[in-house]
Amino acid sequence: MRTVYVNGEYLPETQASVSIFDRGFLMADGVYEVTTVLDGRLIDFDGHMARLERSLCELDMTKPAQFDDLLDIHRELVRANAITDGLIYLQVTRGAPGDRDFAFPDPATTEPTLVMFTQSKPGLPDSPTAAAGIKVISIDDLRWGRRDIKTVQLLYPSMGKMMALKAGAEDAWMVEDGHVTEGTSNNAYIVKDGRIITRDLGTDILHGITRAAVLRFAREAQMEVEERAFTIDEAKAADEAFITSASAFVTPVIDLDGAAIGDGRPGPVAQRLREVYLDEMRKAAI
Amino acid sequence: MRTVYVNGEYLPETQASVSIFDRGFLMADGVYEVTTVLDGRLIDFDGHMARLERSLCELDMTKPAQFDDLLDIHRELVRANAITDGLIYLQVTRGAPGDRDFAFPDPATTEPTLVMFTQSKPGLPDSPTAAAGIKVISIDDLRWGRRDIKTVQLLYPSMGKMMALKAGAEDAWMVEDGHVTEGTSNNAYIVKDGRIITRDLGTDILHGITRAAVLRFAREAQMEVEERAFTIDEAKAADEAFITSASAFVTPVIDLDGAAIGDGRPGPVAQRLREVYLDEMRKAAI
Repeated sequence: MRTVYVNGEYLPETQASVSIFDRGFLMADGVYEVTTVLDGRLIDFDGHMARLERSLCELDMTKPAQFDDLLDIHRELVRANAITDGLIYLQVTRGAPGDRDFAFPDPATTEPTLVMFTQSKPGLPDSPTAAAGIKVISIDDLRWGRRDIKTVQLLYPSMGKMMALKAGAEDAWMVEDGHVTEGTSNNAYIVKDGRIITRDLGTDILHGITRAAVLRFAREAQMEVEERAFTIDEAKAADEAFITSASAFVTPVIDLDGAAIGDGRPGPVAQRLREVYLDEMRKAAI
Repeated sequence: MRTVYVNGEYLPETQASVSIFDRGFLMADGVYEVTTVLDGRLIDFDGHMARLERSLCELDMTKPAQFDDLLDIHRELVRANAITDGLIYLQVTRGAPGDRDFAFPDPATTEPTLVMFTQSKPGLPDSPTAAAGIKVISIDDLRWGRRDIKTVQLLYPSMGKMMALKAGAEDAWMVEDGHVTEGTSNNAYIVKDGRIITRDLGTDILHGITRAAVLRFAREAQMEVEERAFTIDEAKAADEAFITSASAFVTPVIDLDGAAIGDGRPGPVAQRLREVYLDEMRKAAI
C-alpha cells in the first residue's frame, strides 16, 4: 500500500481523493511533472521544478503554498515508500471551487490542488526494453496547440499509445504538417551521418528536461546537434533513432512503421548518450 | 447543500470525491453532457444520451452499468435538489485503475466513473443576458482535432472564456484557418439576407444537441439554412449573429471584436428561434 500526498496530507493510496469539483477532473485544468529516482535520489529535480513553474505561469495559476516544501515532500515519499528506482508523479490543478464554471476561480478563495505519488520501478535503468530498442508507428498529431505546457490533457497521447500497442509497437511518433513533433510521452530524435537531429523548441513540443540534459551532454562530447523538424521519410532513412524522457532516459528506436531503422538494432549514438546521461545524472542526483 | 451522484451513491456535495488515480483527473480521459431542466423537466434528454453514447464509442469506453438508470438518476437529482430551472452535469471517465499508465486499463477490471450534479439556475429561460445579447471576441482555435467528441479537455475553452472576460466580452469565437469554428461552449451562427449560416458538422466542432434542434425548427419554419464555415469578416458584415447551447438556448451576439453586428441589438431571427426552441422543448420535456 503506497503512501501518497494530497494537499498537505500523507495518506494510504486507497483513501487519496479529490473533490468531483476539482478543475483537474472537470476541465483538465492542471499541470504535472514526473521526476525519476535512482538509488533513492532525485534526478534533475531543479529542471522539473523550473518547468513546473513555467507551466503554472503560462496558465496564470498560482503556486501552491507547499511549493517551498516540494523537495521535502519528494524525499518523504521516497522514504515512506522505500523507493530505490522509480518515479515521483506530481500534479497541480487550479483547485476545487465548489462548482463548475469555465471562468477561472478566484485564487484568493480557491487553493490549488497538489497531488503526488510514487511508482516503484526496480531496475529502471537496466530496462530490457531499452537494451532491445522499441518499435514506433507514426500517427497524426491531433493535440492542442500549446504542447510546451505540460498539462494533463493526455487523452490523445493515451489514444496514440493504444494505437501503437494494437499495431504491435511500443509507442507512436506524432506527425503534423509532414514533420514529426514527438512521441506520446517523449521527445524524438534521429541520427544521420553522425549528426543528431531533433525538433526545435516552440509551442509544438514539450520542452523535455531529459532532452535539455542529453543535448548538453552531446554538445559537450563534440557531437553535432541540429535542432529542426524532420520527416518520417528522413527518419526511415536515418542511421539510428531514439527517444528521451524522464523515465525512458535515452531509449533506441529500431523500427518505424514496420521498417527497420539502420540495421534494426540499437545504435551507438543512442547507447553512448544513455550511458553518459545516466552517469552524469547519478553524479548530480540529490 | 446539494445532493450529487457518484458511482451509485447519492452524497452531500462536500463529501463527493474521486480517486486521485481516476483517469479523468490524471489524463482528461472522460466525456460529459449537460442537460437543461425547465419547470422541473428534462430538455432533449434523448439527444444528450445519444451523443454521450457516441462520445464513449469514439473513445472505446464502455458504458457504465448504471446507464439503464440514467433517466432515473437525473430525475432523482432534480427531485432531491428541488430544481425548477437549471442544469444537470454528467461525466463519465475510464475509471480509476489504481495507478497511472498511458495505456487504457482493462475494462473487465476497471469500472468507469460516473459523476452527476445539478446547478440551479432560477429564471434560466428569462436570462437578462439573452435579452441584451452578448459581446464576443475572436481568438485562435488551439484545441485538439476531435472536437466532435465531448471530452473534458476544456482547458483552452476555459482560457478563451478568461480572454473574453478580460476584454470586456462574454465569450470568444474560435478561428481556425481563417474560419470560425465555434464559441467556447456553444455553436456559432450568423444571419445574412435572411439566411442562417453555421459551420457544417465534422471533427472541427461539437455536434450541438441544441444546434440540431434549432436548425430543425428553422427549416420547419421555412427559413434558409446554410451549413458552411464563415469568416470573422463575414460575421462583422452580418445582419445578426447568435449562439446556441443547452444552457444558453439561442442567445443573440451583438458585438464582435468591438464592432457592432447589424444595428448592435438582438436580431429578429435569433429572437424568433429562441422562442420557438423554448416552446417546442417545453412541450417535449420529460
